Amino acid sequence: MKESKTGIFSEDEKESFYKVIFSRRDVRKNFVTKTISDKVLHKILLAAHHAPSVGYSQPWNFILIRNNDTRNLVKESFLKERLKAIDLIPNKAKRRDKYLNLKLEGILESDLNICITYDHSRFGPFVIGRMTIKEAGIYSVCCAVQNLWLAARVENIGVGWVSIIDNIDLGKILNLPSNVQPIAYLCLGYVKEFENRPDLESKKWLERMPLHAVINFEKWDNESETESSWNSLRNELKKQT
Amino acid sequence: MKESKTGIFSEDEKESFYKVIFSRRDVRKNFVTKTISDKVLHKILLAAHHAPSVGYSQPWNFILIRNNDTRNLVKESFLKERLKAIDLIPNKAKRRDKYLNLKLEGILESDLNICITYDHSRFGPFVIGRMTIKEAGIYSVCCAVQNLWLAARVENIGVGWVSIIDNIDLGKILNLPSNVQPIAYLCLGYVKEFENRPDLESKKWLERMPLHAVINFEKWDNESETESSWNSLRNELKKQT
Repeated sequence: MKESKTGIFSEDEKESFYKVIFSRRDVRKNFVTKTISDKVLHKILLAAHHAPSVGYSQPWNFILIRNNDTRNLVKESFLKERLKAIDLIPNKAKRRDKYLNLKLEGILESDLNICITYDHSRFGPFVIGRMTIKEAGIYSVCCAVQNLWLAARVENIGVGWVSIIDNIDLGKILNLPSNVQPIAYLCLGYVKEFENRPDLESKKWLERMPLHAVINFEKWDNESETESSWNSLRNELKKQT
Repeated sequence: MKESKTGIFSEDEKESFYKVIFSRRDVRKNFVTKTISDKVLHKILLAAHHAPSVGYSQPWNFILIRNNDTRNLVKESFLKERLKAIDLIPNKAKRRDKYLNLKLEGILESDLNICITYDHSRFGPFVIGRMTIKEAGIYSVCCAVQNLWLAARVENIGVGWVSIIDNIDLGKILNLPSNVQPIAYLCLGYVKEFENRPDLESKKWLERMPLHAVINFEKWDNESETESSWNSLRNELKKQT
């Protein structure tokens, strides 16, 4: 499993892959009491570690957290930040009520929390590609998050990304050194079921945009006739959303 | 294909998935002259669009670029930034020579370039989760990049992320409005073959770290006996790198 196999993918393999992509969910509920085994955890972490990284800098760490005292502190930070966010919602009573009813984290109910961090000092200061785009190392960490998320889904484990947390709190709670910054705080666990649609879609918070609305041809805003080579794709995208 | 199917993954499906993860490469060479069809491009873009996003904000756009004038301008920006970076390499002649011999982009040789951007204004200003972590929308875009990269691999298409580009140049070249920022500039194309290992590893620029070196238990630096519940995983990780 460790090293890549080159090669072509069959139609069945393609289908399996897209099934992972389309059935992955941001999970905050339905967690069941079942421990993720070392073997499965190892596989998920290895998938994350095989993400791309700028200049091969591999700037990530994975802090595995099961301790309840730690989780309670993180939950406190979540509750504090959630309260602050409520004040920022445009003052529409219905929207605010909807927000208050959303389940936005599973810090205590999940089997495992993982904080994924970015270490700016790793293999530095000269990291290929990062001299031009300073944030590129953080982008690499996000790619690792997505690998982990998809691997968890294929192992039938739900993952929720909690972004309502104060990173300064998190740094203190986890004893992070100054060169290390938290990027993602994830809650992992087996679940009763995976939802068919994202929660924020089924709760009618927002809808999925049609794909054609996020595709641009050649430049940001180019609907000119000169780019007619894109017409067949443009028409296909507009037929299917 | 469009919506998720819930469900459990078989052992074969898991294996297919990990094959994608481990055989994905950052590709800058070996491109062949073959056009990516609308159908395949549609599948790859749909996979990217099904990435997670903070508060379901879907803040990404995909600018598809085949125009050679545009690519030449991007290449110019790359060459300018590459020159600047050379000056920053610690003054070791061997390291510098190695850097100069690395192939770091395939802007002109690939079939297609895609610039993936972040739109901070989409569905804002109140975006769930982004009020606390301001950069969370950018993290979502990176997750979309990784979905796209993996989908391309399963379609046997190579992807290279060029991070030696000045984003100010890119904004001008692609007519980006001020609320939109480029996150990733990707070169896509069919390739003669996928390498077994990352280029920067086979060229001995850097090695892949052992997995256990990037795993932390409970806190950043906690090797204490009190966390003995992690010993079996710790031992497993140290056996296998």
